[in-house]
Amino acid sequence: MAYKSDIEIARAAQKKPIQEIGDKLGIPTEHLLPYGHDKAKVSQSYIDSVQGNKSGKLILVTAINPTPAGEGKTTTTVGLGDGLNRIGKKAMVCIREASLGPNFGMKGGAAGGGYAQVVPMEEMNLHFTGDFHAITSAHSLLSAMIDNHIYWGNELDIDIRRVVWRRVVDMNDRALRQITASLGGVSNGFPRETGFDITVASEVMAILCLAKNLKDLEDRLGAMIVAYRRDKSPVYCRDIEAQGAMTVLLKDAMQPNLVQTLENNPAFVHGGPFANIAHGCNSVTATTTALKIADFVVTEAGFGADLGAEKFMNIKCRKAGLAPDCVVLVATVRAMKMNGGVAKADLGAENVDAVKEGCANLGRHIANLKSFGVPVVVAINHFVNDTDAEVEAVKAYVKEQGSEAILSRHWELGSEGSADLATRVAEIAESGASDFKPIYPDEMPLMQKIETIAKNIYHADGVVADSKIRDQLKQWEEAGYGNLPICMAKTQYSFTTDPSRRGAPTGHSVPIREVRLSAGAGFVVVVCGEIMTMPGLPRVPAATSIRLNDGGEIEGLF
Amino acid sequence: MAYKSDIEIARAAQKKPIQEIGDKLGIPTEHLLPYGHDKAKVSQSYIDSVQGNKSGKLILVTAINPTPAGEGKTTTTVGLGDGLNRIGKKAMVCIREASLGPNFGMKGGAAGGGYAQVVPMEEMNLHFTGDFHAITSAHSLLSAMIDNHIYWGNELDIDIRRVVWRRVVDMNDRALRQITASLGGVSNGFPRETGFDITVASEVMAILCLAKNLKDLEDRLGAMIVAYRRDKSPVYCRDIEAQGAMTVLLKDAMQPNLVQTLENNPAFVHGGPFANIAHGCNSVTATTTALKIADFVVTEAGFGADLGAEKFMNIKCRKAGLAPDCVVLVATVRAMKMNGGVAKADLGAENVDAVKEGCANLGRHIANLKSFGVPVVVAINHFVNDTDAEVEAVKAYVKEQGSEAILSRHWELGSEGSADLATRVAEIAESGASDFKPIYPDEMPLMQKIETIAKNIYHADGVVADSKIRDQLKQWEEAGYGNLPICMAKTQYSFTTDPSRRGAPTGHSVPIREVRLSAGAGFVVVVCGEIMTMPGLPRVPAATSIRLNDGGEIEGLF
Repeated sequence: MAYKSDIEIARAAQKKPIQEIGDKLGIPTEHLLPYGHDKAKVSQSYIDSVQGNKSGKLILVTAINPTPAGEGKTTTTVGLGDGLNRIGKKAMVCIREASLGPNFGMKGGAAGGGYAQVVPMEEMNLHFTGDFHAITSAHSLLSAMIDNHIYWGNELDIDIRRVVWRRVVDMNDRALRQITASLGGVSNGFPRETGFDITVASEVMAILCLAKNLKDLEDRLGAMIVAYRRDKSPVYCRDIEAQGAMTVLLKDAMQPNLVQTLENNPAFVHGGPFANIAHGCNSVTATTTALKIADFVVTEAGFGADLGAEKFMNIKCRKAGLAPDCVVLVATVRAMKMNGGVAKADLGAENVDAVKEGCANLGRHIANLKSFGVPVVVAINHFVNDTDAEVEAVKAYVKEQGSEAILSRHWELGSEGSADLATRVAEIAESGASDFKPIYPDEMPLMQKIETIAKNIYHADGVVADSKIRDQLKQWEEAGYGNLPICMAKTQYSFTTDPSRRGAPTGHSVPIREVRLSAGAGFVVVVCGEIMTMPGLPRVPAATSIRLNDGGEIEGLF
Repeated sequence: MAYKSDIEIARAAQKKPIQEIGDKLGIPTEHLLPYGHDKAKVSQSYIDSVQGNKSGKLILVTAINPTPAGEGKTTTTVGLGDGLNRIGKKAMVCIREASLGPNFGMKGGAAGGGYAQVVPMEEMNLHFTGDFHAITSAHSLLSAMIDNHIYWGNELDIDIRRVVWRRVVDMNDRALRQITASLGGVSNGFPRETGFDITVASEVMAILCLAKNLKDLEDRLGAMIVAYRRDKSPVYCRDIEAQGAMTVLLKDAMQPNLVQTLENNPAFVHGGPFANIAHGCNSVTATTTALKIADFVVTEAGFGADLGAEKFMNIKCRKAGLAPDCVVLVATVRAMKMNGGVAKADLGAENVDAVKEGCANLGRHIANLKSFGVPVVVAINHFVNDTDAEVEAVKAYVKEQGSEAILSRHWELGSEGSADLATRVAEIAESGASDFKPIYPDEMPLMQKIETIAKNIYHADGVVADSKIRDQLKQWEEAGYGNLPICMAKTQYSFTTDPSRRGAPTGHSVPIREVRLSAGAGFVVVVCGEIMTMPGLPRVPAATSIRLNDGGEIEGLF
């Protein structure tokens, strides 16, 4: 049997006018700001008006450590949303927006896959509703204002060697990673070293995704540290007086984007912070608004549960006062096999023993998630070549862990394939079984927070950090930042900092290379290993084969 | 009597849903892609479908050399469009989009003024429909792909000292004017000097505004010269294989943006190339589409008639096969007085002699415009303090020149004030009196074209160019670019290259500092004097007082 590609399925979607999708949620047409016929922003006044509503149930979809086999986290998120609607629940999906630049390197990605997708897929990979352009503009304005301040006399006494605010562009441009700016003489300013990151790595992105409203957005932008003086005292964005104009540039970008699944169910696609140096979740505004207008909200977090779910719980939920009612942990038979030592080329053959062997990774994630006080369901995202014996092996293992695994065939069948999963998830979410709590309190010292994550989530023996890093953390505590949560930046492929160590490794430690303060976003970034904040393009970029065909369709993007 | 500010009037506008505005033009709702409730793009398929329609009449609004008194070119364009609608004509306005960056330096500008404005004013000064962001993205993609090509082995043998493709950002950021990129070692590429211009200066912008359709856009993008080899042979964008993906990024930006005047008449606001190193007109797509769906199209050109109208005629009309049926030359009594030697502070007092003295500038523009074979009407854009005697002095002078001047009070009264102007302009446009022809043929050698403009339009004695420049022009002729039109980049304040020489100076010559080839846009840029392609911010940028107030309104942008 031949299966259609994601793009073929997406193009064949019977989309409904976005006003009809909004109508399902009770959003009046005048409060939907359309972008074309299939995308709309929800007006700020409507968002304000629903704040008093009762909140729906929040379901987090997370995953085992990713393998080259793919786990299908977004696909499961979308499939579960459709499944909940199918069984008569008023449900919506909240996922992240895609970054523009990387699509021109490797091929662009679908939002979901098979018969569990969000559309319009092409526009979501291109300019969409302009949110990321607005973030780039707001970031660039502050960049220009900092150098402009220095140019006109540097009244704030910024040490030009200590400007920590870099520039951004939404493009994979390695030539901009490190530059010398303000060359060319007196009229161009004071030469200094700086560089560009990709837009999704901007602290503005993280702030947009964590801000509760426009006022909170402006305050957080103002609180960003942009530079230091020679005495090492910080210079804030508000000292440059950029936060007001940045907020004006971001006011539309703060409004969630409404689109639809292939089954015409509502989805918010909003925000997309890096999952390493930031928290990797869609916006708080989208999630909290969705909870006020739907009975079930299905959302996801970046990377595997050790990074994504941990940050979702300890950063996003803590900051936004959210509490998940159920966590869905996505696993695939193929990924279990790879964790069990099978090479990618051999995944086609049945191998129940390897599945059993690989389940250790899954088991550790289940235990970790439970430590947050939340009920966990494992969704086995079905691939058409999985055998019954392999699926049963996963189910049996999960049962031994005191949890349950449900096979879901949304990729192949849409909501028909995810109805069982949806039914069980709805039962658990409605049961009130969840007793969510972050795994460390605000008042715990920063280093101890890091150790808590390393020991309780990564199951490491400890943390390795030199005195410079420990002193830095202490300085921030003295400056009043000790109450911030931790944002870990490490490889997504392993519980350890070594991407090759699959399964559930022990006997390792977590070496800290660097710590960074995102004072506006409100977290301390702990960098373990190489973190790339400006990707490059490959030898033959996807862009070289992207074009419009004679019918006006886009070729080469997928 | 107290007059309301432009922003007060704009905010009080009784806007109609954009679908109703489109309906006036006969555009079906499904062919209007809305951006909010008051902006829409016209679908490509609708644009294609009207190509067989009869064309309406084209009216160009241009002006005398600008003075600090202001001449009100856009205001008159909008007022005339409303006036034509008032007298029962199906008319629309075509103007340029505003650049984002400069709004954060000085305050943003209205599209028109008083009761002759296009709305929504605030959004047109911010992200609008994202066209400029798309241009920035397309430009940035090519930038990244050039350095990426060099990084991966430089198969095209690009001389890294001769990469002429700079980067762009839509922000006033002087620190980026000159940079050293690709620093930091092997993984970041080969260090080289480059810099950023503001987005409106991108050749991509000029191309978007001159391209007839998406195919033409892609061809022109491919034809851009991005670098040279050591043997000085050019490397084109198509050698980098970026033009297809750039076209995909620009496909929505190619569609004209429909908005409305304060009187709910349709306006296209689309494209905005620099008026110095580019041609300074709104897009060909907007103008030609408007001509197919309206009986009268009123458009404008940048700067004074010596630059703007000259380029409109010799570049835009030539390339797009357009021919203006009437030209409206905007003048003000105040500007005449300044040309007659009155200081700005003294403009309030009646001074008929100064008005008469200053009319020489007006007279030369009339004669110049007539040399293109087009009928010319002078619109006296009325300021409330102008006296009858002053107005009569202008009218009498224009009559002596064999033309006519009509007082227009659209700023104060809207279309009621511009009905007389509209009536006369419609008569002339419908009379068939126009016999338009560019002032030089394609086949004239490049240097001779420059001399033709210098002598016939600037009334200079001649052109001063060293042998390096003359040799360069000859090389381009040998390479097949001799048939291109000229794009003059000189001061807008004078017929000469000296901004302080007002009136109708003679006895001057035109020194050429530099020539540049815009092979994709299809013109040779002749730079006379300092041309700034990346502005800076002032000591106290407007951005420091821009913010959202408690009511969610933008403060400080205007």
